[in-house]
Amino acid sequence: MPRNDDLLDNPRSPRVRAVAKLAKRDARSETGLFLLEGPQAVSEALTYRPELVLELFATPTAIERYDTIEQLADEAGIDVEFVTEAVLSTMADTVTPQGLVAVCRQFPTSVKEIFAAADGEGPKLIAILEEVRDPGNAGTIIRAADAAGADAVIMTGRSVDLYNPKVVRATTGSLFHVPVAVGIELPAIIARCREAGVQVLAADVKGDDLLAARQGGLLDAATAWLFGNEARGLTDENLARADAAVVVPIYGHAESMNLATAASVCLYESAFAHRA
Amino acid sequence: MPRNDDLLDNPRSPRVRAVAKLAKRDARSETGLFLLEGPQAVSEALTYRPELVLELFATPTAIERYDTIEQLADEAGIDVEFVTEAVLSTMADTVTPQGLVAVCRQFPTSVKEIFAAADGEGPKLIAILEEVRDPGNAGTIIRAADAAGADAVIMTGRSVDLYNPKVVRATTGSLFHVPVAVGIELPAIIARCREAGVQVLAADVKGDDLLAARQGGLLDAATAWLFGNEARGLTDENLARADAAVVVPIYGHAESMNLATAASVCLYESAFAHRA
Repeated sequence: MPRNDDLLDNPRSPRVRAVAKLAKRDARSETGLFLLEGPQAVSEALTYRPELVLELFATPTAIERYDTIEQLADEAGIDVEFVTEAVLSTMADTVTPQGLVAVCRQFPTSVKEIFAAADGEGPKLIAILEEVRDPGNAGTIIRAADAAGADAVIMTGRSVDLYNPKVVRATTGSLFHVPVAVGIELPAIIARCREAGVQVLAADVKGDDLLAARQGGLLDAATAWLFGNEARGLTDENLARADAAVVVPIYGHAESMNLATAASVCLYESAFAHRA
Repeated sequence: MPRNDDLLDNPRSPRVRAVAKLAKRDARSETGLFLLEGPQAVSEALTYRPELVLELFATPTAIERYDTIEQLADEAGIDVEFVTEAVLSTMADTVTPQGLVAVCRQFPTSVKEIFAAADGEGPKLIAILEEVRDPGNAGTIIRAADAAGADAVIMTGRSVDLYNPKVVRATTGSLFHVPVAVGIELPAIIARCREAGVQVLAADVKGDDLLAARQGGLLDAATAWLFGNEARGLTDENLARADAAVVVPIYGHAESMNLATAASVCLYESAFAHRA
């Protein structure tokens, strides 16, 4: 346990404010850094990508409670800096960061890497997010893509910032497992998919029934699923860019499906089709 | 447009406070009422279950913007009471109720009704929530169950309150489409499922692979999916009560799946199996 005089205890110090600023997109773009909050995210980063963790701040209570964190940090050669509760809550964007915050380097994956990877065989399953604006949705889709074994997620420039603290939080660490490319324009991605023999399926209410698509064998091929805006879906122009459009059928009376829910069903149907 | 002196404008009036109190479980239990917030939920209630809507409060701006609301209220014989923004935000639990709040009667469905319904044939697809504590998860599962054409949702007494404003909001109106029973004990529900020839499948990390279950035909039968707590899952005792346990396989490196995501995949796999 650290002595009290080792604690960073001034919430208004420049150092603390610099960390807190990373909640804003401008500060993230300028520095190339982002915030990681809470024991799960921090521990995933320390396990999977320790080289990205530049600073690790914790309250003494949190380090006692989550004892593997200190060990992981130790192994990665990262010093834990102890802070007061007040400093930690100033740094964090979340209401409940549970006493842990890390500053990390952003680590965008290039589209080139995505198409080169996957054991030289090319990607089999990709999720493309075009104009997905809700951080919770974006993060949940990245988490579902990771679970479904997707090779990559690609976020176009009109989607929410991957390094937004709410997106990072909603991925619950999947950000460190699945390669995510950001800021690319949709036509360029689609062209790249075509070259690689990956079909682009737009998830859209105007599409064909997912069950029929599965039964017809459409899902057996390597697929990039294209997900659009929560409220407006995909534009007609973007829909036309896809090879086909597919809808998760609504069998009940629901007006619509939650985007992350629909995306999860689509991604898992593809994952199952690839393994059946 | 109402004149300004028609507006309810005192956020501290007993009437406004009585509405605001419905954010608390005690007040809901005592009155048998609950809060509905935002244009989508209000419009679903007025469309599907207008008899449940006792009071409808709106800012003049909201009534102008969502003009179908006034028409639906008119048809249902419900007076719109105009309120100031300050009154509305005092009444509402949400940060952005978008100018509309309604007070509704609770309308629990009995387990008897659930097993009597479904065209006399008995239910084919049910979601059971045991100790689901997160309002967003519970609401999202109800919405997904509605979309997947489930006959009913059953929430045991250890789950979050169905009429919690955050649950209601997350259902985005599905609360009015799919019958939901509340407060029942799990052993009683499971016994009822057995009697009705509905198998109980526990969604659990210790279960068999969902894809293998689908391929083996397990999903073809009438099914009640049993979903447990977000963090701890189902207890061993409750797991043993189910006919089988099934897991959505994690093909990537995700530590776990979001409960609502996993539930959506399970419910849709059953819906597809029933229709394939």
